[in-house]
Amino acid sequence: MSETPRLDAQMAFLMEADRLKGIDRASRVLGGARAENSAEHSWHLALFALILGEHAAEGVSTDRVIRMLLLHDLVEIDAGDNPIFGEVDHAKAAAEEAAAAERIFGLLPEDQAREMRALWDEFEAAETPDARFAKALDRFQPPNLNLASEGATWVRYGVTLDSFDAQMAPRIGGGAPGLWSWLRPKVAAFFASRR
Amino acid sequence: MSETPRLDAQMAFLMEADRLKGIDRASRVLGGARAENSAEHSWHLALFALILGEHAAEGVSTDRVIRMLLLHDLVEIDAGDNPIFGEVDHAKAAAEEAAAAERIFGLLPEDQAREMRALWDEFEAAETPDARFAKALDRFQPPNLNLASEGATWVRYGVTLDSFDAQMAPRIGGGAPGLWSWLRPKVAAFFASRR
Repeated sequence: MSETPRLDAQMAFLMEADRLKGIDRASRVLGGARAENSAEHSWHLALFALILGEHAAEGVSTDRVIRMLLLHDLVEIDAGDNPIFGEVDHAKAAAEEAAAAERIFGLLPEDQAREMRALWDEFEAAETPDARFAKALDRFQPPNLNLASEGATWVRYGVTLDSFDAQMAPRIGGGAPGLWSWLRPKVAAFFASRR
Repeated sequence: MSETPRLDAQMAFLMEADRLKGIDRASRVLGGARAENSAEHSWHLALFALILGEHAAEGVSTDRVIRMLLLHDLVEIDAGDNPIFGEVDHAKAAAEEAAAAERIFGLLPEDQAREMRALWDEFEAAETPDARFAKALDRFQPPNLNLASEGATWVRYGVTLDSFDAQMAPRIGGGAPGLWSWLRPKVAAFFASRR
């Protein structure tokens, strides 16, 4: 492949990625002022990885985690965001996301399409230490935004401390136990204050 | 420092970073629908680095460039964004940004404050190959958004092909000549079409 068609393909992918800025999530930013979009969420998570890498299991590569987090939500351009506490048909969502990955990573030159798709597949499977830490950060950031916006998403989805624990203890605690120990009492105090 | 105060400081920094989502830039996203904010811009640039790293000079570390780009705009939380083609008092802006870096990176534990500040200083100085490529990407992304939104920012600031070249040829061409060669004819065609 000559230089120009290769760069054409890379730029087609990067300009398609612009659309992630238009995908809104359940989380609220800026103290609750508006919904977070998936592009700024991806940035925030990558920054979490950069700063919190020391809390990962031994051998986790901060740089690989950052790469995964930069890519992890791109499928939402086609498949949309599925809120953690929303009602979701998981089989349908997984099929939509796989089709989206095929199309979106498929815009890249073939070698890069394979490489980026492999990183995304690794993140989704959540089996390697890098992916488990990346997934834990993806679950750890939203409760912090919730604590900064009067529990907006929890109120909206009727979340209780029990349903929070059921969803989050394995996901955050499994990949980042130190972060879970830090967060859990803050969330418990929030729910206690609303009784 | 025990585990908890250290993590408290890291989280104070990461939650302060949320405010970057509220800093609007001159660039338009989603085909011109709204202003880009500096958080989603930082994500987009990090993705540019991940995909376009092969167009950097030999020896440039894509992972260090990504780290720089994740951090590069945080000072705008205090100092605001200075549009490339806007009227800017550069000495005043530099002083405001240095004070912002002192405060914002200063939220981190001391060792990380030093490490992240050093990365930001390196980016600002634009003297190392990593920083020169990072800066080139920071200049290369906005014209691509402009081409996708009928030249919105160029029209607003009265930019001509000559003033574009004067600003961009050294900045993009210096750090990423392959990207400049790809972009320049597209921008020239845009200005020719509006004559």
